[in-house]
Amino acid sequence: SMKETIIKVTVSDVRFPTSLEQHGSDAMHNDPDYSVAYVVIETDRGSRGYGLTFTLGKGTEIVVCAVEALSALVVGKALGDIVGDFRSFYRLLTSDGQMRWIGPEKGVIHLATAAVLNAVWDLWAKAEGKPLWKLLVDMDPKQLVSCIDFRYITDALTEEEALDILLKGQEGRQAREEQMLSEGYPAYTTSCAWIGYTDPQLKQVPCSWYRFKVKVGADLQDDIRRCRLIRETIGPDNTLMIDANQRWDVGEAIDWVTRLAEFKPLWIEEPTSPDDILGHATISKALAPLGIGVATGEQCHNRVMFKQLLQASALQFVQIDSCRLGSVNENLAVLLMACKFQVPVCPHAGGVGLCELVQHLILFDYISVSASLHNRMCEYVDHLHEHFKSPVLIRDACYMPPKDPGYSTEMKEESVRKYHYPQGEVWQGLRNQ
Amino acid sequence: SMKETIIKVTVSDVRFPTSLEQHGSDAMHNDPDYSVAYVVIETDRGSRGYGLTFTLGKGTEIVVCAVEALSALVVGKALGDIVGDFRSFYRLLTSDGQMRWIGPEKGVIHLATAAVLNAVWDLWAKAEGKPLWKLLVDMDPKQLVSCIDFRYITDALTEEEALDILLKGQEGRQAREEQMLSEGYPAYTTSCAWIGYTDPQLKQVPCSWYRFKVKVGADLQDDIRRCRLIRETIGPDNTLMIDANQRWDVGEAIDWVTRLAEFKPLWIEEPTSPDDILGHATISKALAPLGIGVATGEQCHNRVMFKQLLQASALQFVQIDSCRLGSVNENLAVLLMACKFQVPVCPHAGGVGLCELVQHLILFDYISVSASLHNRMCEYVDHLHEHFKSPVLIRDACYMPPKDPGYSTEMKEESVRKYHYPQGEVWQGLRNQ
Repeated sequence: SMKETIIKVTVSDVRFPTSLEQHGSDAMHNDPDYSVAYVVIETDRGSRGYGLTFTLGKGTEIVVCAVEALSALVVGKALGDIVGDFRSFYRLLTSDGQMRWIGPEKGVIHLATAAVLNAVWDLWAKAEGKPLWKLLVDMDPKQLVSCIDFRYITDALTEEEALDILLKGQEGRQAREEQMLSEGYPAYTTSCAWIGYTDPQLKQVPCSWYRFKVKVGADLQDDIRRCRLIRETIGPDNTLMIDANQRWDVGEAIDWVTRLAEFKPLWIEEPTSPDDILGHATISKALAPLGIGVATGEQCHNRVMFKQLLQASALQFVQIDSCRLGSVNENLAVLLMACKFQVPVCPHAGGVGLCELVQHLILFDYISVSASLHNRMCEYVDHLHEHFKSPVLIRDACYMPPKDPGYSTEMKEESVRKYHYPQGEVWQGLRNQ
Repeated sequence: SMKETIIKVTVSDVRFPTSLEQHGSDAMHNDPDYSVAYVVIETDRGSRGYGLTFTLGKGTEIVVCAVEALSALVVGKALGDIVGDFRSFYRLLTSDGQMRWIGPEKGVIHLATAAVLNAVWDLWAKAEGKPLWKLLVDMDPKQLVSCIDFRYITDALTEEEALDILLKGQEGRQAREEQMLSEGYPAYTTSCAWIGYTDPQLKQVPCSWYRFKVKVGADLQDDIRRCRLIRETIGPDNTLMIDANQRWDVGEAIDWVTRLAEFKPLWIEEPTSPDDILGHATISKALAPLGIGVATGEQCHNRVMFKQLLQASALQFVQIDSCRLGSVNENLAVLLMACKFQVPVCPHAGGVGLCELVQHLILFDYISVSASLHNRMCEYVDHLHEHFKSPVLIRDACYMPPKDPGYSTEMKEESVRKYHYPQGEVWQGLRNQ
């Protein structure tokens, strides 16, 4: 209930040895061990909220350390007080007079903020007995807006404009919700073409999918070969995207993607540094005549960066991430800015739990904000879902709306125990090999 | 010597209880405890290099944790191998396939990178028996360029352009070095007007200075009163700067600074989010007719951000920081970009050790890069220098070039012991009060 008080925050370092099979490999991250800093908050009435942020293995212990530092700001707070003025609580975590220096709102401390706030949103949704997307869809627009910290974005989106967008989104909401419940939200798969995959693995493109993403950027000739192989396998009518994971400088990106244009990719994802707004704008402008858009966002570190990417027409697809931005609060700001700038949102997912979380946000986006599926789809990767209590449900290449209360963040206790780093039995076993 | 191998990296959490006296208080950080993550690297021949990054108290333990994670990449490396291909070593630390996810090159992990690399530069300078600025000034331009990672900045500055700038900087170098040794590098003081200072404190403007900075942004009427008081005290011919420490949104910054224009500030520092390149550009354009420039950089997290600030004409004063950017390596890139874009560099200093470190960089900038003192000065704050083995020497409001070998990073052992957090005697004493 809203009167519950948070009495405890615990955080675990949970790592999956995905590097052993080259799952998740790309041009910049060749040996990721998909991992999470996993947060559990407990209340004085025995309720629990679960949250996480995604990492690639080494360094997870740093994020864990940051969660521990933030915990002091969370313990002792009543859930009702938090969500009754969520903007202030967000500000409390992100603008501590001493800790903001090591961000602000970026990198380790912001990943930790995401994990903690994700747990709070899970707790709230469970207290309301609803899946998170439904909590958002049913929420009064004024309360939704009260969750957003508008600091540094008012030159692009004011509180009044945000409210107007949400009020307009109420129209037809019921029909869109029913549509989602029956059809689901369109997805694409990245599982088919990691950099480290062999040709036989590449040819096993799952026939139940219509939209596919290929990792590129390590070697041009190899990229041409791999893109050709995938394009031939999926045929001309299915959708192909390519993803360079920040491998290039600006000029190099333009040249390289131009060489891959014959395979008709819808977008090039992360062509260069995630910090390079002006670079993305230059690339966007150069590739527009080829019919290739620029997508980015999985390492876009906060709403101020997304604001500028939109202001500069630097991207044609906004890839929000549920665990890098400051949880639902900051993602709401980005969804509303994307709506104002009329740029489609196509969330980043995969990793550990990213699919489970972000499906809630994109369902809310369609039902209550964008009201459109044009050029929109949510990433899907078929790893590690078995570790979650309420794993995603994909049907006919669509995310089916989750029905369990909460933010789908809760992991199985056995998984947390076995994959706990470094003392879990899986890691002990690997060390003993 | 260059054959030494690093065998150990240790890191300490050292905090000074500056919040007790409101030293360092500003509109966003009202109770900083100036602190450092303090790194000592040891070689197999018994040499030591000292490095640090600056923090505001809470969260220092997170940076310490990040240094420990990076240590694994440093131990076992020979100094000669590192500096013989410093670009690769920089890349090793900043682009680890797993750890770059929690940055990349920003926030906690980048602060830790700075601390570690600062220690390596200290070790190198000591091995050469020179103060760091002199090591840089005497270094072959080709080797200087080999220290820089040009990834993501080649659209603004290529390796060839960098080399050209450095070769051109050789002309007249000897005379500028002698000038610095006799006259020093011009400085300004921020010690006179912290937000938390009382009026009697404000009136104690040190008469030995010619350039002064005032903290603003918390309350407009109070700012008007404080700026008037300072301007009256220093007179019309001395230089006044104002600093809002990111307090405003874009429109608010323009309105507020316009109200303070009558006090003739040379610049407004950090008017808004350090991430907001386009916002700074808008503010710069609006304030140009008032003769007020925009200065920023102390929280500009890497060379990609500085690149864009320069490309967008978003700042008129580049404020490099010795502990937020990736040490000398990344600062070299920024100095060279600033030279190309013809924007003066006015370093950020203060905190703990920032004056000690950054003086080396700005001396190098004058002697070997910019060759100009026009509109240039280095920040100075008179706190905490007593904890350093080779503290800065200010003479007639100028930084006198340090003569001791190294990067002036070494702290007194007694200071490190007493202020160690939380077990040092100073902190134990405060807890027992």
